[in-house]
Amino acid sequence: MADFKVTPWKVEGKIDYQVLEKQFGIKELDGELLKRLEKLAGGAPHWFLRRKIVFAHRELPWLLDEYEKGNRFYLYTGLAPSGPMHLGHLLPFMFTQWLQEKFDVEVLIQIPDEEKYWARQNLGMKLEEYHELAKEAALNIAAVGFNPKKTRIFLDTDYAKTLYKQAVKVAGHITYSTIKDAFGVGNDTNIGWIFYTSMQAVPAFLKSVEEGHNVPCLIPLGVDQDVHFRVARDVIGKLGYYKPAIMHNMFLPSLMGEAKMSASEKLNAIYLNDTPEAVVKKVNKALTGQQDTAELQKKLGGNPDKCMVCQYYKFLFEPDDRKLEKIFDAERKGTILAGEHKADLAKRINGFLEIHKKRVEELRKGKIDQFIAHD
Amino acid sequence: MADFKVTPWKVEGKIDYQVLEKQFGIKELDGELLKRLEKLAGGAPHWFLRRKIVFAHRELPWLLDEYEKGNRFYLYTGLAPSGPMHLGHLLPFMFTQWLQEKFDVEVLIQIPDEEKYWARQNLGMKLEEYHELAKEAALNIAAVGFNPKKTRIFLDTDYAKTLYKQAVKVAGHITYSTIKDAFGVGNDTNIGWIFYTSMQAVPAFLKSVEEGHNVPCLIPLGVDQDVHFRVARDVIGKLGYYKPAIMHNMFLPSLMGEAKMSASEKLNAIYLNDTPEAVVKKVNKALTGQQDTAELQKKLGGNPDKCMVCQYYKFLFEPDDRKLEKIFDAERKGTILAGEHKADLAKRINGFLEIHKKRVEELRKGKIDQFIAHD
Repeated sequence: MADFKVTPWKVEGKIDYQVLEKQFGIKELDGELLKRLEKLAGGAPHWFLRRKIVFAHRELPWLLDEYEKGNRFYLYTGLAPSGPMHLGHLLPFMFTQWLQEKFDVEVLIQIPDEEKYWARQNLGMKLEEYHELAKEAALNIAAVGFNPKKTRIFLDTDYAKTLYKQAVKVAGHITYSTIKDAFGVGNDTNIGWIFYTSMQAVPAFLKSVEEGHNVPCLIPLGVDQDVHFRVARDVIGKLGYYKPAIMHNMFLPSLMGEAKMSASEKLNAIYLNDTPEAVVKKVNKALTGQQDTAELQKKLGGNPDKCMVCQYYKFLFEPDDRKLEKIFDAERKGTILAGEHKADLAKRINGFLEIHKKRVEELRKGKIDQFIAHD
Repeated sequence: MADFKVTPWKVEGKIDYQVLEKQFGIKELDGELLKRLEKLAGGAPHWFLRRKIVFAHRELPWLLDEYEKGNRFYLYTGLAPSGPMHLGHLLPFMFTQWLQEKFDVEVLIQIPDEEKYWARQNLGMKLEEYHELAKEAALNIAAVGFNPKKTRIFLDTDYAKTLYKQAVKVAGHITYSTIKDAFGVGNDTNIGWIFYTSMQAVPAFLKSVEEGHNVPCLIPLGVDQDVHFRVARDVIGKLGYYKPAIMHNMFLPSLMGEAKMSASEKLNAIYLNDTPEAVVKKVNKALTGQQDTAELQKKLGGNPDKCMVCQYYKFLFEPDDRKLEKIFDAERKGTILAGEHKADLAKRINGFLEIHKKRVEELRKGKIDQFIAHD
């Protein structure tokens, strides 16, 4: 048994992504496939790909075959908010936005306001609160830079006529025991959470329904969401639609080194609406894995893989591979100390958030309407 | 154990309605309550009440208390089609229409096109087929004579935005084990059927959501549907709304004497679209319980309780109690033989269906739109 756990409702322990590939039956994104993707995208691959942050896939070769035959795909991703969004939430959206730009394709973004209402009843929040969080999430997601002409963002309860009609068919093909095995539900689970995956499946074939013929779908997602599509891919096939291809990203670790930032553990995550002062404070507390004293650090050096500051550069704040290598090298050699290191990262994060917040407020003034779909 | 079974998916055996009252925890509609209802309705009670076809209730006294305080109630009923409608389906609608007329109140009518898709997977029908059956059902229900200004008929998949948002809350309050106990579902049950009761619960408090304050709701239904509200009433209370009151009707027996006409057993039911010839044929085969020969029948007489022809007069085709008593009496005394008896009933049924079909075709030309609500 592996000593970590990755499910849509909890990520625990130090994740061995290679073990995960085997557990989930997903494939590594290897060199040849990356080159093929790079060629079709017409440019250097995103640093998520170069650094194996997007590390695995299902049936990407099939999707690229279709693309080469002239069958354009569309992208589908989403987020179920249970609190304000943090940096870790942005990964699949940044990657999806990059794919949209490179392939000039349509994006469907589902924001299920009901999912966490069902899945996290222990939080005791009302559906209306999740709905408000979902509206904030829509702003923060659109701010990533999606093309408003080719992006459709929808909240489940506002788009339920479109979604439910299709979810009915999905649900008819999934038994309780499948859900029990896949999601670990039981007698005490509410029937909403048992039903929910039917709703998440719909956007993976919705374009095929709308177009009246099969349209390939690619789903970039955090690897914890894979289970939904392990269940849904079979059903979608039975309904006569193409099974979606998937690309999986790793989680941005928390500043304290936990496997995944959590929206419900306030201290370890950088929220998209954090003040500059809060960011500085949080980054200052980050785990760096450096030696106990500056003297020792200069002498022995550190380990960038265990230094969360280095990891944040790698995941989000240093797109240039050569510059990243310099940062890692300095960490290894002990030529940079925690203090300057953290000050620089905090500055970059705050620079990023400043732009992000401005975009959010611009969208809030009305531009968001270009993105939102509702019945 | 009783030797009959009444569930939303199957009705078997000879039903003892008194035992059922105890099993379900529902109350008999007794003399005092009937008189009170009669007084408030401002006229003689419907023959369904006089003949105990509508035989039981939940919290009707509370509903009438509210009414007397000036809190108008609304009515909610529905039908999940799995085939064309038959005479037995009309009972709750005829009674609801009578209540609407007497109390001048609003009616919500739910036609869940997804329910039987989930609950009757053995029939192998597509969701689109159920949707078409649901549209036909809407016509046949409106034809019962509802007030178009005060009646809202909706198909679930066309009204899912309105329904799903509320069903999410209901589902969050129902565990799998509750559904397992109430509906007998198990590992092989599809997750749609497990979820479904959440959708059926919604119209029982929808007016309260819309009005922003609690509005009493009365649900006339076939007693097999009671289980949905045994589950839902608790949840609706937890959500802060009034628990609905309920009035239960017995089933119209099949012409062959089975406890309930079944839409899936073609021979025993009179369909609303049957030809006059088909009606004559079916009525001729009806179980009368008469003696083996005309001689014996004249000598010994028959039993109107076991004569389906008599029962059809009682349920639907002889509203006048004195005339009904004459028919029953003739049956007991053997002064009427099966042949004339059946010929007369067939004539009445065909007279009824002729008018009904005309109304359906009138509605089909466009008037139905006055009734249909969709998102």
